[in-house]
Amino acid sequence: MESTPASPSDRIRIAVDGMGGDDAPAAIVAGAIEAADIYGDRLAPVLVGREDRLREEIRRAGGESLNLEIVHANQEIGMEESGAGSYRKKRDSSLAVATRLVRERRVDGVFSAGNTGAMVAASLLNIGRIPGVNRPALATLIPTSGSPAWAIMLDAGATADCKPLNLFQFAVLGEVYARILLDTERPRVGLLNIGEESSKGNELAQESHELLKKRANFVGNVEGRDVLAGKTDVVVTDGFTGNVMLKFAESVWAWTLSMVKAEVGEHVLAKVGGLLLKPSLKRLKDRMDYSEYGGAPLLGVNGISIIGHGRSNAKAVRNGIRFAVDLVESGLMEEIRAELERDQGGKVVNS
Amino acid sequence: MESTPASPSDRIRIAVDGMGGDDAPAAIVAGAIEAADIYGDRLAPVLVGREDRLREEIRRAGGESLNLEIVHANQEIGMEESGAGSYRKKRDSSLAVATRLVRERRVDGVFSAGNTGAMVAASLLNIGRIPGVNRPALATLIPTSGSPAWAIMLDAGATADCKPLNLFQFAVLGEVYARILLDTERPRVGLLNIGEESSKGNELAQESHELLKKRANFVGNVEGRDVLAGKTDVVVTDGFTGNVMLKFAESVWAWTLSMVKAEVGEHVLAKVGGLLLKPSLKRLKDRMDYSEYGGAPLLGVNGISIIGHGRSNAKAVRNGIRFAVDLVESGLMEEIRAELERDQGGKVVNS
Repeated sequence: MESTPASPSDRIRIAVDGMGGDDAPAAIVAGAIEAADIYGDRLAPVLVGREDRLREEIRRAGGESLNLEIVHANQEIGMEESGAGSYRKKRDSSLAVATRLVRERRVDGVFSAGNTGAMVAASLLNIGRIPGVNRPALATLIPTSGSPAWAIMLDAGATADCKPLNLFQFAVLGEVYARILLDTERPRVGLLNIGEESSKGNELAQESHELLKKRANFVGNVEGRDVLAGKTDVVVTDGFTGNVMLKFAESVWAWTLSMVKAEVGEHVLAKVGGLLLKPSLKRLKDRMDYSEYGGAPLLGVNGISIIGHGRSNAKAVRNGIRFAVDLVESGLMEEIRAELERDQGGKVVNS
Repeated sequence: MESTPASPSDRIRIAVDGMGGDDAPAAIVAGAIEAADIYGDRLAPVLVGREDRLREEIRRAGGESLNLEIVHANQEIGMEESGAGSYRKKRDSSLAVATRLVRERRVDGVFSAGNTGAMVAASLLNIGRIPGVNRPALATLIPTSGSPAWAIMLDAGATADCKPLNLFQFAVLGEVYARILLDTERPRVGLLNIGEESSKGNELAQESHELLKKRANFVGNVEGRDVLAGKTDVVVTDGFTGNVMLKFAESVWAWTLSMVKAEVGEHVLAKVGGLLLKPSLKRLKDRMDYSEYGGAPLLGVNGISIIGHGRSNAKAVRNGIRFAVDLVESGLMEEIRAELERDQGGKVVNS
């Protein structure tokens, strides 16, 4: 930033769940330190978790001089615990305390790489829903070969059982998010389905299709290949299908690259080729790398809540915190509220 | 085959929908000719469709000497027509006539690369269901990095809306199919879900999990990476999720390879590497190539019904016809009937 550093009170404060994630608290603390170090003029991470553990990690990482704020939380929720259940049982878990800080307006947003189900429950109950939204959705990015180079897919796993009204609301949320993130004036919205005709799909897809027709920028049903080809900016589906599909695609992606590598190893000639190919594969990998954005926003809750990948490393955490700040500054929340009120669809949304 | 050629009456007769598929009738007729030419001692394709068109294609392909049997059908169903609806409207479509030949026992099985929805409807109504099965499932193969090198996934798109009982029956069908196709004594059966715990997933997944526990070889919930890692031999899911997931994965796969190629083109050094890599990528592609098996059986109907890819070329059609014969000879239908009667789960199946 070219401007003079902001005073501490101008900085955007992001609660960071220090105990959530496969490599917590080490990777989380390291990421928060990086964020404070690099973007300290814009943001202030507030670490939430067991104070002694967090202080120890800060010391270990040599970040004491940054004077990171810590808010103590007695409990933590493991990655394999049941989502909503563990949240209810552990009212003093780090993610419960972190989301409460948002409600109390002591921070401007929250980031957690912890248990997704528990974080969804905590965000819903502590931050609350935006009026006009019944269920929240996790919005993830899918790379495309078109322009813009990304599409937004929601729900990626926050609401497993959806009704048509939920998918309609996801379309509104996704559209506003796309306007901001993809910088497109009129994002196209598609419904993930098993065929192009409106009569295709399961009952949910068929009924959602009818509802979505009320939105001017609805482009109809899309299949996986349409999404990758960039035929839509936003694709909506229920959280079960979205999650299963994304995880399977991630695995196919990783497996394909590993097979390419394995095949390369088979022959000496190919091996030479493989060595030369390495920088290209690296660039390819970067493009798919979740750590670039650091997390997915939980849209529909009344504040910025970013859920990072469980496997988040320090870089992913740093980027997740910065992404939370970007979204606070973008006015996303205000635009979502305005869109829900403004749009014709408002009638549907509130029905 | 080492044995003496079978007499014509011993040959297995497969009705082939001559008018279904993106490249029908040319690719279908060419595939049927290849099948008759190569496997003529075992099988006899029976081409179904507009007689003049089919005779013309046979002539064009130089296959007149094979004396392929033709059964005339007045109508055809396009790939983009609505599935069940188009079947009902066109009672004399090629796939309707072809499936009726199975019911009338004039053939031992049927192959179509045509409209999947219409073929599912035609198979259900003309061939009928196996007692104890409420809804059918398309069973596809997914390559794994384990042993066996394939897993069976069902339903890939025959039944978009499923109840827990449907998924339970799919597990029984998939298990018998895996015993035969993967040659494993006790196939492991997993439920596609968004997490390992039984409490995870949407309502359908949670209730199906409870029901599936009644089967001794149920290994619990599996995610995409588990399937690819070979942690299960059979994975069950509803036809909507299965279809969306498979199509998306196919696209990711194709896209990854095209990106590898595009990246390779970027630099001269990498280009050299890419040229050397080509034979390896070819082998990789072959492994994913649907034309190797030629189609997926529609399990749960009372006869062998193979649905091929719409993009089937002659090789895929030839293999699809041969695959139908393999399944007739394998005793799959008898084993499915026996399993439905034998198993403890029979109580559940028939409830």
